[in-house]
Amino acid sequence: MFSSLSLKTLVHVKRPIMSPNSRLKESPTFNAKSTYRFFQSRTRIVVASFNEVLILHPSFVGMPGLTAYVGFHEICSPKKGELVFVSAASSAVGQLVGQFVKLMGCYVVGSAGSNIRYFPEGINIYFENVGGKMLDAVLLNMAIHGRIAACGMISQYNLEEPEGVCNLFGLLVKCVRMEGFVVSDHFHMYPKFLELALQYIKEGKIVYIEDIIEGLENAPSALIRLFTGQNVGKQVVVVAHE
Amino acid sequence: MFSSLSLKTLVHVKRPIMSPNSRLKESPTFNAKSTYRFFQSRTRIVVASFNEVLILHPSFVGMPGLTAYVGFHEICSPKKGELVFVSAASSAVGQLVGQFVKLMGCYVVGSAGSNIRYFPEGINIYFENVGGKMLDAVLLNMAIHGRIAACGMISQYNLEEPEGVCNLFGLLVKCVRMEGFVVSDHFHMYPKFLELALQYIKEGKIVYIEDIIEGLENAPSALIRLFTGQNVGKQVVVVAHE
Repeated sequence: MFSSLSLKTLVHVKRPIMSPNSRLKESPTFNAKSTYRFFQSRTRIVVASFNEVLILHPSFVGMPGLTAYVGFHEICSPKKGELVFVSAASSAVGQLVGQFVKLMGCYVVGSAGSNIRYFPEGINIYFENVGGKMLDAVLLNMAIHGRIAACGMISQYNLEEPEGVCNLFGLLVKCVRMEGFVVSDHFHMYPKFLELALQYIKEGKIVYIEDIIEGLENAPSALIRLFTGQNVGKQVVVVAHE
Repeated sequence: MFSSLSLKTLVHVKRPIMSPNSRLKESPTFNAKSTYRFFQSRTRIVVASFNEVLILHPSFVGMPGLTAYVGFHEICSPKKGELVFVSAASSAVGQLVGQFVKLMGCYVVGSAGSNIRYFPEGINIYFENVGGKMLDAVLLNMAIHGRIAACGMISQYNLEEPEGVCNLFGLLVKCVRMEGFVVSDHFHMYPKFLELALQYIKEGKIVYIEDIIEGLENAPSALIRLFTGQNVGKQVVVVAHE
């Protein structure tokens, strides 16, 4: 499904480029065999071992990871065995939601296109990244007492006029809760998330995929790929190699 | 504002017309000076004193009352001092929501038309009865961490195609929760609601308004009034007087 040429699961860097941040404590899950320190910049978080072989997880233990965790685990209160639908499932956040869903013991269906299939038993949880027609289609397929975490609506960002969503009556008849959130509201949950995230990393249960384009000159096309849904994994532009 | 000719706050009947229902217990709030029994039919609930002077509250202690209570108190978790906007504020449910809001110590703005004004500090709670363009306008005016109880969307029921709602992105940027509900999901809350409702009745804190049209031959026009927002209070058609 994925082209290995365009994907990287980890980015290795040789030296710390950020200042230690005392707000991020050492994780208790890493005390046994290896001890990690955390460094934080404005845009990314680094998990670093003491021997200075750094493993950069800017996405998984950063904004996309926390977003996926909060949206799925906190906003949607999943129960084992539920059906979860994730739109933009190959995106920076969506790919993590899909993995969290499976690790929770739920069933996941992901969409990286514009159509969804018919769900005869209904969708218990919808992790909303797309909006517009996708949301309209999902609203017709929600199960009773379903939950929608509204994380993004990428199909709408560049429209002059947003598309109208016509099936909101589905919220009433199915008693569905739809909740918008921004990750900055939930930074207090970071330690709780990080404990789970580091355990998953340690056990090798999470794969994080980046869709890498080389060269600043290709940044515009990378941006277009993002908004046309062509990226598979977090869209990254490599400006320079260390 | 209201025409007294078209309004009744209570309907008195001379004798019980329903069977006692053991599921509805006597309220502890009425043990001191007067003791009440409850009777229930499929469509209405009667609060009756033992001396058989019956006070019929089919709406307030029935479906509309429980709906208003659940939507406002349970779905929206109001905090004192918040701003609450109620659409279809003169409807069977809406008029009770407005009174609950004030009794809770919140500020209420009701709309019985199709326009809302601009709310510079944002709406904390929206009790949604109308849908369509009204919802679209409210979404632009929600406060951060606002809550929307989606109770009805009466503007949409008779359209061949529902209107599109374009401002759902407001849910994300304002971290708003929108939750649909049907009252039948919350019947287990009836005793809790009734305790409050009877206390309010006893203290004379609730007024319930009915918009009464006489004669079955006028039922079609009453129905049209309902769907064109002309009714002030619960729309009732009196078929026969006892």
